[in-house]
Amino acid sequence: MTPIHDFETLVSRLSSDNAARTRVAVVCPADEHTRQAVARAISDGFADCTLYVTPGCDWQADGLAELAGKISVVTLDTPDDAARRAVADVRAGLADVLMKGLINTDNLLRAVLDKTAGLLPPGRVLSHLTAMQVPGRDKLLFFSDAAVIPSPTAAQRIAQAHYVADACRSFGIDEPRIALIHCTEKTSPKFPVTLDYADIIQRAGNGEFGKAVFGGPIDVKAACDAEAAAIKGLTSPVCGNADALIFPDIEAGNVFYKTMTCFCHALTAGTLVGTTAPVVVPSRSDSAAAKFASLAMACLMSRAARD
Amino acid sequence: MTPIHDFETLVSRLSSDNAARTRVAVVCPADEHTRQAVARAISDGFADCTLYVTPGCDWQADGLAELAGKISVVTLDTPDDAARRAVADVRAGLADVLMKGLINTDNLLRAVLDKTAGLLPPGRVLSHLTAMQVPGRDKLLFFSDAAVIPSPTAAQRIAQAHYVADACRSFGIDEPRIALIHCTEKTSPKFPVTLDYADIIQRAGNGEFGKAVFGGPIDVKAACDAEAAAIKGLTSPVCGNADALIFPDIEAGNVFYKTMTCFCHALTAGTLVGTTAPVVVPSRSDSAAAKFASLAMACLMSRAARD
Repeated sequence: MTPIHDFETLVSRLSSDNAARTRVAVVCPADEHTRQAVARAISDGFADCTLYVTPGCDWQADGLAELAGKISVVTLDTPDDAARRAVADVRAGLADVLMKGLINTDNLLRAVLDKTAGLLPPGRVLSHLTAMQVPGRDKLLFFSDAAVIPSPTAAQRIAQAHYVADACRSFGIDEPRIALIHCTEKTSPKFPVTLDYADIIQRAGNGEFGKAVFGGPIDVKAACDAEAAAIKGLTSPVCGNADALIFPDIEAGNVFYKTMTCFCHALTAGTLVGTTAPVVVPSRSDSAAAKFASLAMACLMSRAARD
Repeated sequence: MTPIHDFETLVSRLSSDNAARTRVAVVCPADEHTRQAVARAISDGFADCTLYVTPGCDWQADGLAELAGKISVVTLDTPDDAARRAVADVRAGLADVLMKGLINTDNLLRAVLDKTAGLLPPGRVLSHLTAMQVPGRDKLLFFSDAAVIPSPTAAQRIAQAHYVADACRSFGIDEPRIALIHCTEKTSPKFPVTLDYADIIQRAGNGEFGKAVFGGPIDVKAACDAEAAAIKGLTSPVCGNADALIFPDIEAGNVFYKTMTCFCHALTAGTLVGTTAPVVVPSRSDSAAAKFASLAMACLMSRAARD
């Protein structure tokens, strides 16, 4: 598989895949951007969608009426009921991807994280993964974690390393270059995160994360700009050419996410990982394009996990 | 004073100021970019420079030979001696700004932070302040701290708030809007930084930081993009229109700095603050333009502190 380096290629790859379409459970598609994203995924032929709605939800707006013949609709009393039922259907193998519409994230997550009826197996780490398309850059940039784990433990960082490596490979990046981000290049007990990074690099050397190259601690610029890395005298294969970044904590990850979308016009796709199926949890301020890209990313990752 | 919204205006303001030129002590100007920055500051008429060099330092290159009549040179045996002597001269009131050339930052800082002979009064907080010129943005963006304090205490955050407010006002921003950055808008004990922020906002309301508006916790995008703030329903005067950002820790600040320079072609100026005189400590990878902008920023701040 040749690598997928932009969202347009991602969509055409999904649409041209002769395998069965990905089955998506959409909770409360009561906002325009979610409906637009769902309509496009159906039109593009890569998703079959079931909508979990509450009475009065105008799910037929924004192009969905024309696609009604291809849509299943389940009506529940409340958004919480809709979330629980959608999760139950994913658990039962009736859907491959869960997507949030206009429901409070905390309410959806309560159903997703329910210990007996949810989607997170015991001991698994829930994290968030973003793929970013940056104007002027010739490939996607993956990163973790801008949204879920405030301050990762060593075990959580190892889980993030797995998720990021797996996601890159599902996009056809045969041997992803993954940069472990820190403000300096020094490994020092003064910054415990750098000790976690050293452990990850050792594990990577032992093949624990599959085919992938990890490097760091390294700063964002040295990871993404070969000239900056050269000035610092850095030579790791990750330098200047990273496919993915793992941030030390949610503050750093969130600053990267918000800075790139605010100042660099980056388009993002994001999904929760660690669950038995990808869970798309866009934020209110995400555009229809971002919600659609997130859904497409989740569909690809679901197919890759199945293969 | 009308506000200074870009580095070109900063330089013309400095050059047209009829007050005495700012006296700059330059330690080891043995690299091209430092010499170019110094040459331009002298040519533009806003700085008088004393160079602290070691034997063999080719300080006359890069345009400085032509300016030799306007330059004082002090030759010392070692870079450490040069650093100590430059610091001593600043202490003695013979220079207003200290600037690092090709000397290890740690070595320069050892002289700057020396308890009896340095530039940091007892009890003062050393921090780093950046001013950033972003293509497409109509004013500078100030922020703290991308380089010095790993994980600020509450007292260190208060010091940062003072430094940022003072710096903005020295650039003519009468009532700066200062955003306290965090990944969400919630104040919660789960994130102790948000409690520090609440305290800072209360102090700001009591006038502790002079004329300035503080807001937060808020994310980078809501602070800098009015539309993103509106979607989130935020209404503080800081939203979408921040003059300055204070980051929760060095990881977040450094990610912002590196992301903006790597992906957004931002031009930065930076200086250490908290010392009795601004200390310009560029990094090796800074361009001549960045070193010059840093020197100009430090000169302005020195003049503002004197007035």
